[in-house]
Amino acid sequence: MPCLFCKIVARELPAEIVYQDEHVTAFKDLHPRAPTHILIIPNAHLVSVDDLADEVAVNAAAQCLRVAREIARARGLTNGYRLVTNIGADAGQSVFHLHFHLLAGRRLSWPPG
Amino acid sequence: MPCLFCKIVARELPAEIVYQDEHVTAFKDLHPRAPTHILIIPNAHLVSVDDLADEVAVNAAAQCLRVAREIARARGLTNGYRLVTNIGADAGQSVFHLHFHLLAGRRLSWPPG
Repeated sequence: MPCLFCKIVARELPAEIVYQDEHVTAFKDLHPRAPTHILIIPNAHLVSVDDLADEVAVNAAAQCLRVAREIARARGLTNGYRLVTNIGADAGQSVFHLHFHLLAGRRLSWPPG
Repeated sequence: MPCLFCKIVARELPAEIVYQDEHVTAFKDLHPRAPTHILIIPNAHLVSVDDLADEVAVNAAAQCLRVAREIARARGLTNGYRLVTNIGADAGQSVFHLHFHLLAGRRLSWPPG
């Protein structure tokens, strides 16, 4: 079965895309858990941080961090935000394409799950 | 006041360091919220993801993701783990040196705070 997030990158599946460049796509989470809840993914398919086996992959992931900062600045998230990425079962990873959750717009408690 | 995490990198403050290379230092969180709770930081001082203003900084953060994967593999965290980084007040950032929390060893709930 094709990867859902790869289909979003290719615009073969609908999503509320808020940012896209040659490396990264960002779109609203379908089940938001904060006033701002955006998923930021590398366009290239990587399963998770566990898939960062070489410099190309590490750089693809890092571009997501760059875009997180850009989105936060563009949206004026001056009160802060949290970035979260889940790897595997204990973390509850449900889509096996690397993604960072950007959560903002409310106080986020601790621990993070 | 000097940055606490810069002092840990320089070994001027005690910490239970579990990994260190020329780019990254990782050490146990003093207030663990999971059976495995490690902080992974760039050796170079960056405040947070909001400080990733150029490629050098983005790459420094990327190296933390690489090390997260290495630590998880070295420790056999095959059930998964969660990576979290806090930016600013709403996220509860308390030390202003970029750090990724690696949490593992239990089921992590959702939302992440």
